[in-house]
Amino acid sequence: MDKPLISRHLMDSDGSLAEAPIEVPKVGILGSGDFARSLATRLVDSGFSVVVGSRNPKRTAGLFPPAARVTFQKEAVGSPEVIFVAMFREHYSTLCGLSDQLAGKILVDVSNPTEQEHLRNRESNAEYLASLFPTCAVVKAFNVISAWTLQAGPRDGNRQVPICSDQPEAKRAVLEMVRAMGFAPVDMGSLASARELEAMPLRLLPGWKVPAFLALGLFVFFYIYNFVRDVLQPYVQQGKNRFYKLPVSVVNMTLPCVAYVLLSLVYLPGVLAAALQLHRGTKYRRFPDWLDHWLQHRKQIGLLSFFCAALHALYSFCLPLRRSHRYDLVNLAVEQVLANKSHLWKEEEVWRMEIYLSLGVLALGTLSLLAVTSLPSIANSLNWREFSFVQSTLGFVGLVLSTLHTLTYGWTRAFEESRYKFYLPPTFTLTLLVPCVVILAKGLFLLPCFSRRLTKIRKGWEKDGAINFTRPVDHALAQKTSHV
Amino acid sequence: MDKPLISRHLMDSDGSLAEAPIEVPKVGILGSGDFARSLATRLVDSGFSVVVGSRNPKRTAGLFPPAARVTFQKEAVGSPEVIFVAMFREHYSTLCGLSDQLAGKILVDVSNPTEQEHLRNRESNAEYLASLFPTCAVVKAFNVISAWTLQAGPRDGNRQVPICSDQPEAKRAVLEMVRAMGFAPVDMGSLASARELEAMPLRLLPGWKVPAFLALGLFVFFYIYNFVRDVLQPYVQQGKNRFYKLPVSVVNMTLPCVAYVLLSLVYLPGVLAAALQLHRGTKYRRFPDWLDHWLQHRKQIGLLSFFCAALHALYSFCLPLRRSHRYDLVNLAVEQVLANKSHLWKEEEVWRMEIYLSLGVLALGTLSLLAVTSLPSIANSLNWREFSFVQSTLGFVGLVLSTLHTLTYGWTRAFEESRYKFYLPPTFTLTLLVPCVVILAKGLFLLPCFSRRLTKIRKGWEKDGAINFTRPVDHALAQKTSHV
Amino acid sequence: MDKPLISRHLMDSDGSLAEAPIEVPKVGILGSGDFARSLATRLVDSGFSVVVGSRNPKRTAGLFPPAARVTFQKEAVGSPEVIFVAMFREHYSTLCGLSDQLAGKILVDVSNPTEQEHLRNRESNAEYLASLFPTCAVVKAFNVISAWTLQAGPRDGNRQVPICSDQPEAKRAVLEMVRAMGFAPVDMGSLASARELEAMPLRLLPGWKVPAFLALGLFVFFYIYNFVRDVLQPYVQQGKNRFYKLPVSVVNMTLPCVAYVLLSLVYLPGVLAAALQLHRGTKYRRFPDWLDHWLQHRKQIGLLSFFCAALHALYSFCLPLRRSHRYDLVNLAVEQVLANKSHLWKEEEVWRMEIYLSLGVLALGTLSLLAVTSLPSIANSLNWREFSFVQSTLGFVGLVLSTLHTLTYGWTRAFEESRYKFYLPPTFTLTLLVPCVVILAKGLFLLPCFSRRLTKIRKGWEKDGAINFTRPVDHALAQKTSHV
Repeated sequence: MDKPLISRHLMDSDGSLAEAPIEVPKVGILGSGDFARSLATRLVDSGFSVVVGSRNPKRTAGLFPPAARVTFQKEAVGSPEVIFVAMFREHYSTLCGLSDQLAGKILVDVSNPTEQEHLRNRESNAEYLASLFPTCAVVKAFNVISAWTLQAGPRDGNRQVPICSDQPEAKRAVLEMVRAMGFAPVDMGSLASARELEAMPLRLLPGWKVPAFLALGLFVFFYIYNFVRDVLQPYVQQGKNRFYKLPVSVVNMTLPCVAYVLLSLVYLPGVLAAALQLHRGTKYRRFPDWLDHWLQHRKQIGLLSFFCAALHALYSFCLPLRRSHRYDLVNLAVEQVLANKSHLWKEEEVWRMEIYLSLGVLALGTLSLLAVTSLPSIANSLNWREFSFVQSTLGFVGLVLSTLHTLTYGWTRAFEESRYKFYLPPTFTLTLLVPCVVILAKGLFLLPCFSRRLTKIRKGWEKDGAINFTRPVDHALAQKTSHV
Repeated sequence: MDKPLISRHLMDSDGSLAEAPIEVPKVGILGSGDFARSLATRLVDSGFSVVVGSRNPKRTAGLFPPAARVTFQKEAVGSPEVIFVAMFREHYSTLCGLSDQLAGKILVDVSNPTEQEHLRNRESNAEYLASLFPTCAVVKAFNVISAWTLQAGPRDGNRQVPICSDQPEAKRAVLEMVRAMGFAPVDMGSLASARELEAMPLRLLPGWKVPAFLALGLFVFFYIYNFVRDVLQPYVQQGKNRFYKLPVSVVNMTLPCVAYVLLSLVYLPGVLAAALQLHRGTKYRRFPDWLDHWLQHRKQIGLLSFFCAALHALYSFCLPLRRSHRYDLVNLAVEQVLANKSHLWKEEEVWRMEIYLSLGVLALGTLSLLAVTSLPSIANSLNWREFSFVQSTLGFVGLVLSTLHTLTYGWTRAFEESRYKFYLPPTFTLTLLVPCVVILAKGLFLLPCFSRRLTKIRKGWEKDGAINFTRPVDHALAQKTSHV
Repeated sequence: MDKPLISRHLMDSDGSLAEAPIEVPKVGILGSGDFARSLATRLVDSGFSVVVGSRNPKRTAGLFPPAARVTFQKEAVGSPEVIFVAMFREHYSTLCGLSDQLAGKILVDVSNPTEQEHLRNRESNAEYLASLFPTCAVVKAFNVISAWTLQAGPRDGNRQVPICSDQPEAKRAVLEMVRAMGFAPVDMGSLASARELEAMPLRLLPGWKVPAFLALGLFVFFYIYNFVRDVLQPYVQQGKNRFYKLPVSVVNMTLPCVAYVLLSLVYLPGVLAAALQLHRGTKYRRFPDWLDHWLQHRKQIGLLSFFCAALHALYSFCLPLRRSHRYDLVNLAVEQVLANKSHLWKEEEVWRMEIYLSLGVLALGTLSLLAVTSLPSIANSLNWREFSFVQSTLGFVGLVLSTLHTLTYGWTRAFEESRYKFYLPPTFTLTLLVPCVVILAKGLFLLPCFSRRLTKIRKGWEKDGAINFTRPVDHALAQKTSHV
């Protein structure tokens, strides 16, 4: 904005508005499939002059927007400097006849291999195209965008389009086109990245695989454990048929275990990382890979934890809707009458249940705030301090509330022999292990001896390192002894 | 980035930092209303030098930010090359006296007509302005942004500002200004699009109208149907007063029907489209308009389905809170005692309820994942394969779970004569029609004979078309015979 | 896009593709901390040539990406024109030895003071740096981005990076770099804004503080009020122990009060503003500060209201899960049997509860729509008319539904003497005050005499002002008498 907004007056000397002397930029497209057509539509809508090269222009013309000129391939590639190659890899070689016309132009490879093709060919489609046309500047772009998104246009203007090329100027030209078409271009470097770009649309939620299998594994383990304790044991030892508990009751005992353990697994890697830094006396050594991966999957683990907790709430609210609940209540009332007892009330049981329900609701409320701030559009509007306040502080509050919820649910059951069915301890005692370790460790790290050392380390201080030229005596000094 | 970041050193020959020789770009504003003021604030904040032209500068100066110079119209339009016209259409003609000063400049029309004005005038405000000032380059922009958003600034930088103009250079200049002000400009082509741009702020959720009326229509139909069966029939034939069921119970029977039918209507158009493609043997013929519209409204229909399902869950959880539920329970207990029955238990009823509650929770959980991935910020972060995995695969799982939920709810009731009140079949049997058709069709399309043909068609193959030059024998070949 | 996409052919005269003659832009980094390293990674990934200046290059080289050259400070600052200063403020002065090499270059200050430092130093870090290097162009940027975000890259391309500088060209250069790195630059004006920029990462949800304390205050007040009425009074006057109600029952009576009052406080300031405008006869006078602030915090208040309402729903659904609920039911059944009453049914109680539960669910459903449209990514996709339809119209419907929910909950209790425990009126009567005022005022403003005047005022008309040159007689004319 530090130059005149228009380089010269738009007026001619005769005072009338001059015809804009600059022509609309021309773009060529080779191919007539869905993607070619969507590309043509989008380019026309973005103010480009589009010419499509087809082997059968008469037949395909009707499929393209009227503003796009459809002609033979040879004619189409003549005047535009940027040409989109919207064809299958197998057909690239059919373009070799055009290599004279294409020489010196920018070829944009928009293709995506199928999964099999991607595994078969070690060379990316874009690199293959570049090898066929050594006199062209090949740019890989738009492959992550579906034909549908192209045609509809970028509704909210932040669809990213990664781009790579070995020719900076060609890359820059395509980058500007991407921006003009309403997408957000992202420079991914040289054409060697093309294979990575072509793998992008083949990805299927890679960050969720391990967390999902973890959650599934925990679910299966706890479901079987609860089944043995609450259904199998009464059947084997007392002959009671409680198999009706399988669809709701056992699931509802399992879900909170999964949610609770997953939540503690969100905070465990942070504790391990801090312990490792304390032990090593430096932050400049890389964490082991497994810890690195774990730290990067905390968000997904946390969201799965919230999902299980929310399902647990839904299942719990379903409990009084069950027919078995109704029968149990009626039978209890009948028993009371037959036993001539006029008033039923166990103060301890009442208190236990009221407290643990209340804690459960509060824990779920806290976790829901965490889940909401994980939404990209909200996370983007928070600064680092706010994000870490919500994710660390609120998250830890959620963990503590969940622990209290579990403890009040358990009450004194861990100490009653009758609860050890088949010698198996009550399920809730199992789930308490990891969370309690995390909470204790977090508490430990708050002690001055540890917290001061951790702060120093995180400011860049090292135990025996070169930077440790003066031993800082307090927090303020610690900051001065190291760079940012 | 392929040129030096600054074109020359910022140092003067005498070694001191040179005064930046480039002036801050000047922008003029004509008008003194809310929008003019917000515009001035935003422009000043974005580093522009703003001069405001007012008919009464003394009076209006106090309303503008101090950095903006407020003067008479004639003076204001002198030096800036870009001038915002923030006035009502009725006042455009009052500017004709300035046409000499305005000649050759860029006029930005930011106005919005009211709904009546938009219907009355066939010519857009921007085109009217252009006709009054043929020597100016008129650009339509900013009309979709409210004065409030302008003043507050674009909090998350992806507020789109559509722009159109017949002069490419003027458009480009305004486009750069929009970007400098922190908004995302979208080129909408020539000034002929101005009418479309002016219609944008008048839109009221156009994509939601048909789906909302559809949901409302289904609700009314099923509410009346349920009312007749569950309230009217007992009253007419048995004299029982069950009108208390109207606010909760009948609504809660109606909502799942609406949610379930809507969900199946999300997947029906896809099935119809596939059937049409199979029948026609090509994908290159347009679908009928009604099918096209239907396909485009699937997201809204799906979200309404989820909303109804969520309300159904809330209503269901309210059931045991009702006073009528309490009375029914107590009365049942009293009956049991009076009949001297000591134990009440119907194993089949227990199982039916446990299973259908569990399936209901799982269906709702699945639908909630679909709803979350419909959020723009999440949909943007998924690639096409991930999005279609969630929306197609998970959505279909949700449909199957809902069907099982409905079937276990119904159990054997469809085959009991007593359930056919007024000869009307149980409501759940009605709702099963469309979903079962969808599920059966989806199953059919998985058969090799259909799935192979569909894959070929979607790859571009045609039954009797010109492209069908070789008959592919397998999947891999099918890809080779057609362009992308 | 109005110029050739590439300025010349990429071909040499001999027909082979020319080596791109333009060098990759060079960028320097001073510092070797976390931020310096993340910056280097991001710059390398964005196609820049990075040279890092360190006091101990051998030691730190291993910490940087291989593509970045790590050398001594003196060497590093030689050739790049843009140099990032990624050091603590305390170390700025150590760079003074390099001032000859740095002269005329762009220094980018990326530092963030701690809270104490920010309060201690009146001068921002960037201004301090500028005072040390008067021959350099200092730009403040990137301080709001965490090292982690820098390294991971902007996942969704709309992370804003505010920038400020006194040199427009330097600012422009850094602005382009920010864009090239995939972030959304925001021009914040001159270097005097640096202090404001440095305060940004120190903010902790400033917009939420007042609303959160308001909600907390209301919660405490209503909790105590309910405690006195429902727990203390029965204990003192009838000796009944109802302390078990504290964790769930009293909380669940308190939450709807808070939610309801907060919701009415969302709509009260709008009513006050309208009344003030009517009274003043103009919209051109600023509202008092407290009203301005209140108007700006409506979104947060509304979201807290929704959060309380959602918690209220969860607590309500927990009610039948309580042990006390089970005991009460059984005891009621036993009582009935002992009193030889065979049928329990109070038609009025049944109706009251069914209606108020249904209204409650509908109110929550409406509020949830409001909450969803408050998400930035959804709010961005709505035009002003749609946003105000949802927030004003739907919000008001939610307020009316909540009022009806409260009124049917209360039923005739406000008129029963026995309900005035300790002479305190039932809680629900207290909460009705503000909402009813809002609803009445909204109704009043719909009367033609007020609504016409309000419309005129909002179109720019003034009671005794200069603009009031013709007295408009109807709506259509009102628009013509004033500017936008």
